[in-house]
Amino acid sequence: MEKSQIQAASELQSRAAGITTFMKLPHTRDLAGVDVAVVGVPFDSGGAIRVGARFGPGAIREQSKLYLRRFHRTFGFTPFDVLKVVDYGDTPVIPELIETSFDLITGDVAPIVEAGAVPLSLGGDHAVSLPLLRAVARRHGPLSLVHFDSHQDIVDSYYGGRVRYNNGTVFRRAVEEGLIDPSRSIQLGMNGTVFPGMFPQESEALGFQVLPVERVAELGPERTAAAVHERVGGAKVYLSFDIDVMDVSVAPGTGAPEVGGLFPREALGIVRRLAGLDFAGIDLVEVNPLFDAANMTSILAANLVFEFITLLAIRKRDQHA
Amino acid sequence: MEKSQIQAASELQSRAAGITTFMKLPHTRDLAGVDVAVVGVPFDSGGAIRVGARFGPGAIREQSKLYLRRFHRTFGFTPFDVLKVVDYGDTPVIPELIETSFDLITGDVAPIVEAGAVPLSLGGDHAVSLPLLRAVARRHGPLSLVHFDSHQDIVDSYYGGRVRYNNGTVFRRAVEEGLIDPSRSIQLGMNGTVFPGMFPQESEALGFQVLPVERVAELGPERTAAAVHERVGGAKVYLSFDIDVMDVSVAPGTGAPEVGGLFPREALGIVRRLAGLDFAGIDLVEVNPLFDAANMTSILAANLVFEFITLLAIRKRDQHA
Amino acid sequence: MEKSQIQAASELQSRAAGITTFMKLPHTRDLAGVDVAVVGVPFDSGGAIRVGARFGPGAIREQSKLYLRRFHRTFGFTPFDVLKVVDYGDTPVIPELIETSFDLITGDVAPIVEAGAVPLSLGGDHAVSLPLLRAVARRHGPLSLVHFDSHQDIVDSYYGGRVRYNNGTVFRRAVEEGLIDPSRSIQLGMNGTVFPGMFPQESEALGFQVLPVERVAELGPERTAAAVHERVGGAKVYLSFDIDVMDVSVAPGTGAPEVGGLFPREALGIVRRLAGLDFAGIDLVEVNPLFDAANMTSILAANLVFEFITLLAIRKRDQHA
Amino acid sequence: MEKSQIQAASELQSRAAGITTFMKLPHTRDLAGVDVAVVGVPFDSGGAIRVGARFGPGAIREQSKLYLRRFHRTFGFTPFDVLKVVDYGDTPVIPELIETSFDLITGDVAPIVEAGAVPLSLGGDHAVSLPLLRAVARRHGPLSLVHFDSHQDIVDSYYGGRVRYNNGTVFRRAVEEGLIDPSRSIQLGMNGTVFPGMFPQESEALGFQVLPVERVAELGPERTAAAVHERVGGAKVYLSFDIDVMDVSVAPGTGAPEVGGLFPREALGIVRRLAGLDFAGIDLVEVNPLFDAANMTSILAANLVFEFITLLAIRKRDQHA
Amino acid sequence: MEKSQIQAASELQSRAAGITTFMKLPHTRDLAGVDVAVVGVPFDSGGAIRVGARFGPGAIREQSKLYLRRFHRTFGFTPFDVLKVVDYGDTPVIPELIETSFDLITGDVAPIVEAGAVPLSLGGDHAVSLPLLRAVARRHGPLSLVHFDSHQDIVDSYYGGRVRYNNGTVFRRAVEEGLIDPSRSIQLGMNGTVFPGMFPQESEALGFQVLPVERVAELGPERTAAAVHERVGGAKVYLSFDIDVMDVSVAPGTGAPEVGGLFPREALGIVRRLAGLDFAGIDLVEVNPLFDAANMTSILAANLVFEFITLLAIRKRDQHA
Amino acid sequence: MEKSQIQAASELQSRAAGITTFMKLPHTRDLAGVDVAVVGVPFDSGGAIRVGARFGPGAIREQSKLYLRRFHRTFGFTPFDVLKVVDYGDTPVIPELIETSFDLITGDVAPIVEAGAVPLSLGGDHAVSLPLLRAVARRHGPLSLVHFDSHQDIVDSYYGGRVRYNNGTVFRRAVEEGLIDPSRSIQLGMNGTVFPGMFPQESEALGFQVLPVERVAELGPERTAAAVHERVGGAKVYLSFDIDVMDVSVAPGTGAPEVGGLFPREALGIVRRLAGLDFAGIDLVEVNPLFDAANMTSILAANLVFEFITLLAIRKRDQHA
Repeated sequence: MEKSQIQAASELQSRAAGITTFMKLPHTRDLAGVDVAVVGVPFDSGGAIRVGARFGPGAIREQSKLYLRRFHRTFGFTPFDVLKVVDYGDTPVIPELIETSFDLITGDVAPIVEAGAVPLSLGGDHAVSLPLLRAVARRHGPLSLVHFDSHQDIVDSYYGGRVRYNNGTVFRRAVEEGLIDPSRSIQLGMNGTVFPGMFPQESEALGFQVLPVERVAELGPERTAAAVHERVGGAKVYLSFDIDVMDVSVAPGTGAPEVGGLFPREALGIVRRLAGLDFAGIDLVEVNPLFDAANMTSILAANLVFEFITLLAIRKRDQHA
Repeated sequence: MEKSQIQAASELQSRAAGITTFMKLPHTRDLAGVDVAVVGVPFDSGGAIRVGARFGPGAIREQSKLYLRRFHRTFGFTPFDVLKVVDYGDTPVIPELIETSFDLITGDVAPIVEAGAVPLSLGGDHAVSLPLLRAVARRHGPLSLVHFDSHQDIVDSYYGGRVRYNNGTVFRRAVEEGLIDPSRSIQLGMNGTVFPGMFPQESEALGFQVLPVERVAELGPERTAAAVHERVGGAKVYLSFDIDVMDVSVAPGTGAPEVGGLFPREALGIVRRLAGLDFAGIDLVEVNPLFDAANMTSILAANLVFEFITLLAIRKRDQHA
Repeated sequence: MEKSQIQAASELQSRAAGITTFMKLPHTRDLAGVDVAVVGVPFDSGGAIRVGARFGPGAIREQSKLYLRRFHRTFGFTPFDVLKVVDYGDTPVIPELIETSFDLITGDVAPIVEAGAVPLSLGGDHAVSLPLLRAVARRHGPLSLVHFDSHQDIVDSYYGGRVRYNNGTVFRRAVEEGLIDPSRSIQLGMNGTVFPGMFPQESEALGFQVLPVERVAELGPERTAAAVHERVGGAKVYLSFDIDVMDVSVAPGTGAPEVGGLFPREALGIVRRLAGLDFAGIDLVEVNPLFDAANMTSILAANLVFEFITLLAIRKRDQHA
Repeated sequence: MEKSQIQAASELQSRAAGITTFMKLPHTRDLAGVDVAVVGVPFDSGGAIRVGARFGPGAIREQSKLYLRRFHRTFGFTPFDVLKVVDYGDTPVIPELIETSFDLITGDVAPIVEAGAVPLSLGGDHAVSLPLLRAVARRHGPLSLVHFDSHQDIVDSYYGGRVRYNNGTVFRRAVEEGLIDPSRSIQLGMNGTVFPGMFPQESEALGFQVLPVERVAELGPERTAAAVHERVGGAKVYLSFDIDVMDVSVAPGTGAPEVGGLFPREALGIVRRLAGLDFAGIDLVEVNPLFDAANMTSILAANLVFEFITLLAIRKRDQHA
Repeated sequence: MEKSQIQAASELQSRAAGITTFMKLPHTRDLAGVDVAVVGVPFDSGGAIRVGARFGPGAIREQSKLYLRRFHRTFGFTPFDVLKVVDYGDTPVIPELIETSFDLITGDVAPIVEAGAVPLSLGGDHAVSLPLLRAVARRHGPLSLVHFDSHQDIVDSYYGGRVRYNNGTVFRRAVEEGLIDPSRSIQLGMNGTVFPGMFPQESEALGFQVLPVERVAELGPERTAAAVHERVGGAKVYLSFDIDVMDVSVAPGTGAPEVGGLFPREALGIVRRLAGLDFAGIDLVEVNPLFDAANMTSILAANLVFEFITLLAIRKRDQHA
Repeated sequence: MEKSQIQAASELQSRAAGITTFMKLPHTRDLAGVDVAVVGVPFDSGGAIRVGARFGPGAIREQSKLYLRRFHRTFGFTPFDVLKVVDYGDTPVIPELIETSFDLITGDVAPIVEAGAVPLSLGGDHAVSLPLLRAVARRHGPLSLVHFDSHQDIVDSYYGGRVRYNNGTVFRRAVEEGLIDPSRSIQLGMNGTVFPGMFPQESEALGFQVLPVERVAELGPERTAAAVHERVGGAKVYLSFDIDVMDVSVAPGTGAPEVGGLFPREALGIVRRLAGLDFAGIDLVEVNPLFDAANMTSILAANLVFEFITLLAIRKRDQHA
């Protein structure tokens, strides 16, 4: 579906042309029949040192338009033949007001969930996962969280208790609010230096399973993915992918880069093996084009989003088979 | 008109958000009631040394979205209260095929002209002015050309006659095709080194008036603009603005930069004084973001496009008054 | 004073070496005998589209260290022979909490004012002028404001009244709080497109005098400076210099760049003629290195800060003469 | 040979100095006694989305001059002691005319082949391999193709049949023209998303062997190289290396970057094991400095070209032994 | 120790704020009780093609301030709880005078060694290791050298004997001066092209053990580290880490980049296994921010420096246990 | 002369192609009949804070190749029809050895002077003017110096007398060595902050005339040029143009940028009016591409070099007339 529109364009237009949407998908708020809505959340007031993730959705869209083709080479099919996917545009946000922005985000994404579609959200900083989880969990929660990140983001508060909502506290808040079920959740790729409040044990105390980057490297993609499947079981999953789980040399355009992270083939190797999970929501966050080099982070991110769409297509295809 | 849609957005969204169109204007191909259609022509196979102008329309749209507000401070009104302006998207182009692309461009823009609207085109390299002129002249030609540029672009051919269509031959072709009337046309800002085929006398031999940059500087904006009005009289005008008429230090992001060109206040001073001319078509070409610094060229270009819209609004307002 | 320390360094060290402070001034919080304290305010949550001004103080310090020498060539003396100047470091700020940050800023700068010194603050976005004015006005207010900017920053609120504190509302708040006396205040350099709430008349309704950039250009530096002196009279002055008053081609590294702004010689020509004013506080804001080209904005800013120090030195020298 | 000239330079000159040729080799069109001619083909009108590969030859030369030394550390000898290598300069090209440019390229490179030397060509986009193959196959063809790339470049046509010559169709044309023998040819490293016309099976239908990147990774360098040797047998080989076979994080400066590609040690591991093949022509294409980061792509490319020269030297050395 | 000062800052300040020192450590020349002094050596006249390493210490400090947290996740403790670490600032240097600069560097670092602390030096180009070794060896020498680098840096002289002191001759000079004991020294990671004077055998002739990058890759981190321990035995160690041992794609910001070097996880894997060695001095050199992409080289370097501090802390902790 | 060779190239080659020399002039050391030899001096160890001017000659050549055409539009002729101009390549230099490099430079340039040609040298930092003056003055000296610069470069020594040869002392040394006659020399454009040893009076004490930038601005190009003609009389002239005389916003790529400097039209206006002077040598120095933005400094520099060639052509043409 939407095929004719896209192919007609490709016949007479170079890929550099046209108004930019994710993979040149139709930009609409009409959710009738939609399976997946790609939605931007251009919010970055959630505490990052390096600000600028508000430009993430635009950058990912731009690179997706230039470099992504519609057929998945290794899975051997076109996900858009199975799924109806649209570009829903961006949610409203107010940079000066975090909690108001959260309400705006939840309110804007909720109709996607209510329409039975999966919101595939492009951050923005990681703080946006909280309002996104609220929108998804309202219908499907508490959710199993599959969380790729160099950091666990379960700090209780910053600045002596003054700040409780930002990109470092998001999953503690999500647990407190009952949006996710830690006992079916897993955090992968933890890396870099830490301070108190960021220790693996603190996630474990909340009930999460934690696979630091050294363990992921040791297990390899196949056994890592198996660990995820085992942890999740058949639960409804929210996948949150912080691009900083990748090594700084492959994803420099992010807010809190770390050394020793995942490389592309590892990440693809794990992600592709998540096929079969029952995703209720997905986000990819912390792409910050202001610090990127040659758009490599946005290109990587755009490819990952296409992989996520493919995972959703496989699930739908196999259910209908 | 369209006001409600735009203002509602501004109330709950930061300017970095949303799908990018020129000044967040509605993106549509519906020309009913439209006065001005902003249209991108992402074509750069017209011979530039520095390729990349295909990314010009996207860059201008992006900067327009971030930094332009809707009210013209010095003229004291909102052009969008007078004019209905839309973002028509990009024309089809095929980078490998110049003449086929010209036909595609003319064919895509012609409906704008036929609907009685003014096409305000964003290049692309200067070669695109030829198919644009064809579309406009079909209804309004032969046109008076008002041409800002460091170069006259009236070379007969390149590579020993092998290449007759590119960004250096465009206005000779336009004269030959009867699209413009040189006796009512003027070229302003000629600058930099030349080779045979680019001499001022060669433009004059075709019937153009030429004001090199030294003469423009000497006259100042007021008398320069007066010279344009005098030359044009009441004719239908096609305004072609090559951003390389600006000094390389203010517009580095272009294909053939020159030293000693116009500075912003000079350019604004002339352009604003063109109010009253009867524009049938306008283009702004040769913005090349691959060579820009800190987006300064795209920001300048976006502001100029807003000035052009304002000129069109003044004309309409004053005619109706 | 401090001379021995600085000269000793210069004898055996290249200028690229050493911990970075403004012009390699001593970094201290000891205010005894201090005339001027350079202080960074690395806060940028005040609503800019382009975030990143939090990196402004660091960038200005870095460039000041590399390229500034201690003697003022045109005034013919070394301001540091007259004034004791220190680098006070940065104020605390919490990016997520605007109003809390304001209190932290005011609280950190107040001791400078109380010690009888002038705070010379490096932004940060323009929102920081409000807490800085609070600190200065507590002792010296209501102040005469001399305000260089492309924008008047007197918007009442954004997002339908939801946001009252950011970089666009700062001087309306300052008037409401009685920190400045509009009848002795002047805004210079207004430029670019606007929306309702930004019109010159709205500043004038508050009591300000407004000289848009076209008027500043017409008057020239000498008469512009005379207009400032006349407006201010002998009042205590707060000078707020938003770098976006400069043309985008000379100061691209800023949050809301405009075309047609001041050029360096104009700015220096006006600023140097402000000698004699009785400055109680000064800030230079909106330098954003994330969008700069070749550090040109930071180099310009560092030079302006040195000019401001020189103005303070002239005042002190002439009073003691 | 040429040693004295090069060593004399190295004694009194820093490596940053001098007119830039590949590794400071002599720039000449005199082919007497020449074994290898490095030749630039600065053509990029072959359809890439990201234009700019015309600047590839210059960038590779520049980096080769700065960072390459003449002795191969792991093979333990100086290839220039065995081979006479020259920098032949660039072929003529006319950006606006693809097929004319092809003729110019073939005509300019043919004398190298006729003189018994190997052309080692620096692209330009991948379209240039067609005229290069024509020049080489005229004497040595049909050739065995060893093709490193993320894409097979065997699309039949673009834009509904309108475009048959560009960087995506090059090897289908080469098969049709009888320049290469698919049954002795192999394509390695296929990666990324695809559209119809790019499927592995479509290459296989033409007779090629295809090793996608997943298979190359699985085999490792040693077995991958063995597969190449087996496929090629003793045939005359044309090696075409598209830099986009590398992961986008190690070679961002290219026209169609992909995620999950080869890393440097893999590429070196395979290439070095191609020693013994009988190369009649080699090209390295799609280096685009306009999108590079810190020249990393050009540095990688320059090192690969040195490896290719070393392969040629090993062949000659071992034949003479 | 120093904890209160650092934690207080972290409570009310964003990490972007404040005067920049390494990890916001106190900047002091008071060595009482100090275990480790981080010291910058901003000197780059040692012969690099790509100059600019003088900006290395500043860049590493800046990134350490933004992205490093104080707790080592994998070793499970805070090195600053065991060690007193200060930022000693930069040594004096005179770019025009290499040998004078060497004396200044040795003289400035000697007091650190005499106070019983370990100098952890940030280059600057590799030439600075010679004066640093002089300062350390005066008390602890001859030292065991553990040297990570793509190059052995044991060339005898450049420019026909005219230049004996630069970044390519440093360890031959160190052997000649008796500062290091080659029989207990090891060089790891040699990579790239070479010229005579750079051959592994030439290092071996001086008595060094050499592990080229291919051997390091083959051994893996664990056995590589074991080889270092075996070679060093219980000797006092000087660790010199040239960032160019890393692949150009992960550390482009350096003077002599090579393809095929170490990747982050390999480097971390080896370095962390050096725990237990008795380090008398450490340097990290050749970070050149002028050629970096997105600060990735400086971020990597800052992390490595933190690893080095941790190694020193482990040694002290275990000795006291 | 050389015309056929150059025109043939232009007929079949895009300007991006070919080995890079200044304006694609022939690269030769054969001085027979040569009027002007463009020569690079890639030396930057002369003390600049921002190193990298060694890359200046390469950058100027590259931009000259891309953007300069052979006919001078305002003077109305082709200087190459009057003059034989060659690209002589670069002089040898040894970065580590300033005084040895000076001897190498003088020795390499002297044959140009002896052959009766004018050396037109591309720096490198300003220190290179001393060895260049030595080469020229040996035959034509003492010379009248026409010196454009933000700085007078007559400091006696740096680092407490330790450094007497660098880019800040060059003209004091030249006076001491009798290479220039200060009483017929003039320094124009002095700008920015200073320290003792850089005061205008110190130049005047040596016998120079000094026109600071404020005076140049006040006089305008015509009267400034007249002042130069008056000062010089009929003497043999050495023109030294430091690109930092331009405002940092138009020439950011330089070692000691200043705010308030010349703008392009001013510089061109003065330079073009120097026609008639009897130039024995010319240099353009301090272009540093490592700090440039969008090549704007190199493009400006290349244009200035073409203007200098034109001045030489006018002199020869008028003498022969």
